[in-house]
Amino acid sequence: MKARQFFIATLKEDPSDAEIVSQKLMIRAGFIKKVAAGIYTWTPLGLRSLRKVEAIVREEMNRAGALELLMPAVQPAELWQESGRWTFYGPELLRFKDRHERDFVIGPTHEEVIADFARREIKSYKQLPKHFYQIQTKFRDEIRPRFGVMRAREFIMKDGYSFHASFADLEREYRNMYDTYTRIFTRLGLEFRAVAADTGSIGGTGSHEFHVIAETGEDTIAYCPTSDYAANVELAEALAPQGDRPEPTAPLTEVATPGVKTIADLVAFLEIPIEQTVKAVVVESEGGEPVLLLLRGDHELNEIKAQKLPGIKNPLTFASEAAIRAAFGAGPGSLGPVGFNGRIIADRTVAKMADFVTGANRDGYHYTGVNIGRDFPEPEVADLRNVVAGDPSPDGKGVLALCKGIEVGHIFQLRTKYSEAMQCTFLDETGAERPMEMGCYGIGVTRILGAAIEQNHDARGIIWPEPIAPFEAVVCPIGATKSPAVAEAAERIYRALSDAGIDVILDDRNERPGAMFADWELIGVPWRLVVSERGLSAGTVEIRHRRAADNMVLPEAEALAQVIAAIRNAKTGDTHAT
Amino acid sequence: MKARQFFIATLKEDPSDAEIVSQKLMIRAGFIKKVAAGIYTWTPLGLRSLRKVEAIVREEMNRAGALELLMPAVQPAELWQESGRWTFYGPELLRFKDRHERDFVIGPTHEEVIADFARREIKSYKQLPKHFYQIQTKFRDEIRPRFGVMRAREFIMKDGYSFHASFADLEREYRNMYDTYTRIFTRLGLEFRAVAADTGSIGGTGSHEFHVIAETGEDTIAYCPTSDYAANVELAEALAPQGDRPEPTAPLTEVATPGVKTIADLVAFLEIPIEQTVKAVVVESEGGEPVLLLLRGDHELNEIKAQKLPGIKNPLTFASEAAIRAAFGAGPGSLGPVGFNGRIIADRTVAKMADFVTGANRDGYHYTGVNIGRDFPEPEVADLRNVVAGDPSPDGKGVLALCKGIEVGHIFQLRTKYSEAMQCTFLDETGAERPMEMGCYGIGVTRILGAAIEQNHDARGIIWPEPIAPFEAVVCPIGATKSPAVAEAAERIYRALSDAGIDVILDDRNERPGAMFADWELIGVPWRLVVSERGLSAGTVEIRHRRAADNMVLPEAEALAQVIAAIRNAKTGDTHAT
Repeated sequence: MKARQFFIATLKEDPSDAEIVSQKLMIRAGFIKKVAAGIYTWTPLGLRSLRKVEAIVREEMNRAGALELLMPAVQPAELWQESGRWTFYGPELLRFKDRHERDFVIGPTHEEVIADFARREIKSYKQLPKHFYQIQTKFRDEIRPRFGVMRAREFIMKDGYSFHASFADLEREYRNMYDTYTRIFTRLGLEFRAVAADTGSIGGTGSHEFHVIAETGEDTIAYCPTSDYAANVELAEALAPQGDRPEPTAPLTEVATPGVKTIADLVAFLEIPIEQTVKAVVVESEGGEPVLLLLRGDHELNEIKAQKLPGIKNPLTFASEAAIRAAFGAGPGSLGPVGFNGRIIADRTVAKMADFVTGANRDGYHYTGVNIGRDFPEPEVADLRNVVAGDPSPDGKGVLALCKGIEVGHIFQLRTKYSEAMQCTFLDETGAERPMEMGCYGIGVTRILGAAIEQNHDARGIIWPEPIAPFEAVVCPIGATKSPAVAEAAERIYRALSDAGIDVILDDRNERPGAMFADWELIGVPWRLVVSERGLSAGTVEIRHRRAADNMVLPEAEALAQVIAAIRNAKTGDTHAT
Repeated sequence: MKARQFFIATLKEDPSDAEIVSQKLMIRAGFIKKVAAGIYTWTPLGLRSLRKVEAIVREEMNRAGALELLMPAVQPAELWQESGRWTFYGPELLRFKDRHERDFVIGPTHEEVIADFARREIKSYKQLPKHFYQIQTKFRDEIRPRFGVMRAREFIMKDGYSFHASFADLEREYRNMYDTYTRIFTRLGLEFRAVAADTGSIGGTGSHEFHVIAETGEDTIAYCPTSDYAANVELAEALAPQGDRPEPTAPLTEVATPGVKTIADLVAFLEIPIEQTVKAVVVESEGGEPVLLLLRGDHELNEIKAQKLPGIKNPLTFASEAAIRAAFGAGPGSLGPVGFNGRIIADRTVAKMADFVTGANRDGYHYTGVNIGRDFPEPEVADLRNVVAGDPSPDGKGVLALCKGIEVGHIFQLRTKYSEAMQCTFLDETGAERPMEMGCYGIGVTRILGAAIEQNHDARGIIWPEPIAPFEAVVCPIGATKSPAVAEAAERIYRALSDAGIDVILDDRNERPGAMFADWELIGVPWRLVVSERGLSAGTVEIRHRRAADNMVLPEAEALAQVIAAIRNAKTGDTHAT
């Protein structure tokens, strides 16, 4: 491809309404153009990267035995009424009436359509298992579309749905998809992590999210660097500390703490380590009674864990100040277990503490030297908190670290939710009619481009991983208008790369070097080859990887060989340069 | 691919609501499944053929220098209001409001979005020309969706839009697209014709339709087998017959023709050739006066041609019986030019006739021996009729033939219609601001599959052209469950074809031969290779092309070589087997 035939549309300035770096860079570099809120045109440049993502996803899905089909974007309301989602899905579901006043939706997802397909086409266990997928434009009417392709209204998904005669076979395919997604994100050249998204009843295997690791991610992930354990921080289990609770050594002592309202105040006032403090949180029981939760001062309450405890109101409801004052005789900031007669639940860490500090249930006072069993009865013990870096990994294989991630994939065991609602049944070996076991597997194809940029950029622009770069290399001639020799050499190098199967563009726009280099750094092409009179007189070409700090000046043949080898390696290797 | 891993879903019976052969066969063979009226799921089988069409279209568009991009399906109403089509487009334009009550459409076409893109991105003549295209799902809310993919509501189009600094450059690209479309439909293996769709002001080059030739087509095309002339029958010019008008030889004679109402009656009653009769049609002038049109008895009035004549009411309006009786003194069936004092327009053929028969303007009477100039004044002469087979070709290079066609492509010179309405301008070499010249170029991607079947089928099912067949060959083992040798040979032949780059499927379903063969004939796979014990014992394989009447029994290696060569030839050759 040559730049003049192609369409390069970089902008000098960041778009004023862009909020995050991938959105700014995709618009500035000319990958997408906004048509309406959350609705974009993919330029020829952007479409090149998008198609490369699609091709890798498609190849690996086919390799895994899934069958591609194409369902309609427009779906009849009847199917959504059958599944019940016509009622339960919110206004993100775009509904409309056709000219005959019949109800339709523009599909944000296709469980209903595929279940309808399967129940019509699959009658017998002999036709199972089957896994159908599509790569398709979807629409979700986000209330506040933002962040470019990260939360667009119109977007492209790979959505797959599998059908099975047994749960065991669903589990087999789930594992197959776990491995396939791992291959896909590896091949895309992204640093990512598969994250348990559900601690639920099926051994934690019922749902996994695939996250691209990026500092700007919206989700926090707890993972174990020495094993494959990873979970959304809200779902990671905080284990009890090892060993027994120390024996009490300090007496229970009430101290005046005037003006102390928070743990930070308390630590500063008493000049003690925060790990010696215990904070009190009062929530409501199912019956509306106050329940006291105890957490170490530096730990955060995990509301999801708390509301799942028996007898606790779900969703979690904090007690009112009036109720607290009635039960404890003091207000928040001075609460503690000593003298409280209601239900007390201590976090596992608190249960292993001795000689700690808590509120004295008297405004402006705290107790030091508080000890379980001695100063108040042994409480219930439960996992009440978010994990923190350094906690032991729940799989026992190391300690946890935290990072930020962007969800780009999700695999899920739907089981028989849709097949029961929609009579998607089959006849088993005994002739009995049973609902099919279903799995679903999604990849946010357009979102991947945004996530890749969040992970790979610098002040000058995007740094594409080779497998999804719009071009793998750019040839930049300097002074080609004045020097036929430069123009000729650039053309020769361009052809040599093309012939070697490299996806290369020749910048024949006759821009000045500064503007030309800035464009390609913004666009994020991995390799740049600069052809100049000075280089030609020495027989050399300057090459530079987008991540490198400096040029390499090499004889032409050597420069070509190095670029070709590096690109091939980046596309086939399982390792990448992050 | 192996059939058990794949998804074969043929039906024994035609679907009850299918109206045309391609619709019946696509559903019976399992290429599409209906989701709602005019809305289909493309099965894995159907998607294979669809993707092959897309790939050929994409390759040729790229080769022609067009740049692929991807515009959104959902478009803001503002753009349609700017172009004026928000008002003028009918209810096929699906409009809806998003959750914030803003108006949107689901795009049936993208002139507005691309013109908006171009006006933002292209400022200077230096950036021109540019041709952008996409392959995309579109929606048109047909009042009566029918004929399967031929008139679906949701469908896939290749739509391209070009932008130019001059009309001359638009003409160059228009020719480029004419050639590109010719290559595309040739490569698809279809018999087709480019048809002038507009006799208009720009030398007949302003618009061409590409039709797949099929007896079941909705459009009638007039073409010249000895040149590249082709036009919609309504737009083909009927030339005047060669030579002068013969001299009168018969006297004007009034004859009683009781009960004669039609030309057929007249011919039967008088026992004369129909070519000797002239029929009279009375239409209104712009002022409402009756105008008499004269056509040879066997010719059809072309209303489009008639209503374009100066002074004729447009749209064409036939005179009422009362007005006719007032002007002629007789009713329809007995009308003619003799004695009529109003405006008379004779078709070019009538103008060269002598001694003909017309109505006598007296109910139940006709004149024989009517002659122009002698019996009534020389009338105006114009092209008033549809061409018929045997007419001279307007390009002077032969005679016309007629055939039926299905429109699958359309190229069109939009000129500045949208660029003026939407201020899509550029600065020319002199610094003056001018609207861009625009062209648009569409291919009905999903429709092509239906048209290909209308053209290529028989009583047993579809006969796919090789380039768009879901599989190019099928290996059918007979008795593989009982004979390991058959299973092994089938596997070997399957691998040999795969390794040779043939898109082959192995039918490992263990169906009985009759059912198995019927499935593949219905599906329309071009080549079938049958492996049996009997064949193995003789070292032979039975091969058969879907169009062939008989099997060929060949030694295995020879059978493979022949199938591989035939498929390669069918995909690369410019000729095909129709």
